[in-house]
Amino acid sequence: MALPKSIQSAATQIQPFIRKTPLIHSKAFSELTGADVWFKLESFQVTGSFKARGATNKLLSLADEEKANGVVSASTGNHGAAVAYAAGKLGIDCTIYVPDDVSAAKLENMKQFGAKIEVHGDDCIKAEAKAREVSEESGKIYISPYNDPFVMAGQGTIGVEIESQCQGLDAIIISVGGGGLIGGTASYLKSVWPEINMIGCSPENSAVMIHSIKAGRVLALESKPTLSDGTAGGVEKDSITFPICQTVIDESVLVTEDEIKQAMILYIEKEHQLLEGAAGTAVAALVKKKDDLKGKRVGVVICGGNISLDTIRELLK
Amino acid sequence: MALPKSIQSAATQIQPFIRKTPLIHSKAFSELTGADVWFKLESFQVTGSFKARGATNKLLSLADEEKANGVVSASTGNHGAAVAYAAGKLGIDCTIYVPDDVSAAKLENMKQFGAKIEVHGDDCIKAEAKAREVSEESGKIYISPYNDPFVMAGQGTIGVEIESQCQGLDAIIISVGGGGLIGGTASYLKSVWPEINMIGCSPENSAVMIHSIKAGRVLALESKPTLSDGTAGGVEKDSITFPICQTVIDESVLVTEDEIKQAMILYIEKEHQLLEGAAGTAVAALVKKKDDLKGKRVGVVICGGNISLDTIRELLK
Repeated sequence: MALPKSIQSAATQIQPFIRKTPLIHSKAFSELTGADVWFKLESFQVTGSFKARGATNKLLSLADEEKANGVVSASTGNHGAAVAYAAGKLGIDCTIYVPDDVSAAKLENMKQFGAKIEVHGDDCIKAEAKAREVSEESGKIYISPYNDPFVMAGQGTIGVEIESQCQGLDAIIISVGGGGLIGGTASYLKSVWPEINMIGCSPENSAVMIHSIKAGRVLALESKPTLSDGTAGGVEKDSITFPICQTVIDESVLVTEDEIKQAMILYIEKEHQLLEGAAGTAVAALVKKKDDLKGKRVGVVICGGNISLDTIRELLK
Repeated sequence: MALPKSIQSAATQIQPFIRKTPLIHSKAFSELTGADVWFKLESFQVTGSFKARGATNKLLSLADEEKANGVVSASTGNHGAAVAYAAGKLGIDCTIYVPDDVSAAKLENMKQFGAKIEVHGDDCIKAEAKAREVSEESGKIYISPYNDPFVMAGQGTIGVEIESQCQGLDAIIISVGGGGLIGGTASYLKSVWPEINMIGCSPENSAVMIHSIKAGRVLALESKPTLSDGTAGGVEKDSITFPICQTVIDESVLVTEDEIKQAMILYIEKEHQLLEGAAGTAVAALVKKKDDLKGKRVGVVICGGNISLDTIRELLK
């Protein structure tokens, strides 16, 4: 099934489990940029990030036997909470592997959805390796955060909603990590609005997909710490998101940590809403590209709102 | 026309100009309290507070000649922004009187909706007196923040939405200032769910309506400073909201400044959303009354989200 079609079908499937999030016109950012700015508020999604869409679509796609077997995943953040949420809703047994330095707040977030947590290793890579090992031994399906057609189709349902919420957009700005969010959303929106300019953005400190697109192959690059922890990290060598991102991303923007920070403060000040660093990356790209966007209708995906009190404190210091 | 009927009619009238805000189930606050907690997010309303509802309904009710004459109001906060917003939408000339110590952020907020601002006097009472004087001299209608049946009916449209968004509530907690929000919302909800327990709350530092209900007459009481600036201040002696609040408020809760502060931090931490002090008052009342609310379906109106960066900084210090 072509991706836009499978995204449409995902939108119908997951609808009982997720929120149709608001697309709001921002007067403040429109005045600030000279563009007509629309924010898609996934900060408002169940679990506080778009990841609930992909995880729900993936778990719904499993055969009854696979559902009965249970699933495993690895994540300290939004994907872990999303898998835990969807598994809870669908009555699927679920174990999330996390490294031993996971924050108490993130653990609590995953536990509240009823997931079993296994602490393994001292970083995310080891926790993920363990989850994959358990998956192979037990036959429990491993739920990837982005390298999966059902996960990507689920994230793309944001595009289906945006289509129904406005009269069209000239450009849309989406943060890029593993490429599931932009791959799905862009594939759908380009199928209905072929002229839309798809702008992918990442922090300079971790922009593996964007550098890989420029190189024409998936690069193994180290990442530096970034406020945009939701997009940070590597891309799997054979990720299905890579050729799709190559096709759908028209333009890319890299932003510095200070640009992300300033954009987050500006958004909190003007919109009176919270956002996490990965969403701040998209707002920073909007501000950075404003001269090119004047007079255009621009969507910006606020991909999540899961920010800790400590990070807010740090931002506003 | 009976109030519930005029509220229903208001809901239809204002619908093109305001947002139907989400009513979301809070897992975190449900676990924390043992109740089944639903937040009605007026923090998400256009202008960031419920006040847009009442102001829009009032301006829509004016005769063509009155609309052509223009309106005046006085406010440094949410009501001023709401009148400015509604006037802008309806093409009505609008002047807002503000005291000379108004913050730059609040001024900017009102100006962005196209209102004319007149600075007059060194406090809100003088600014309001001036607005009323101009109203009498010029024939421009003065838009009261609460003492007006159309304003109260507009605020009550929150009840119409809540009715359509859940299966019923056993109790609802609403912050009380002039009484427009609780008067309208409670009147409507009691007409459809007669058994609902209506809990009004105010900061100890400024609880004029609640003390007045206890005394059986509107009291002239001084207010101390409070985080809940949106509810603070006196109640007009002849306010139409007073007899209605006497009838519909079943129970009242007073909260301290520290309780408001802790509730705001807790809400930001658990919900990853911002709220202003008046909404923090309702969350504080929920926490304070939790032993009485166990096992019940409880709505809490998050009446606004207009919080400044400085106040967030102060909270998280």
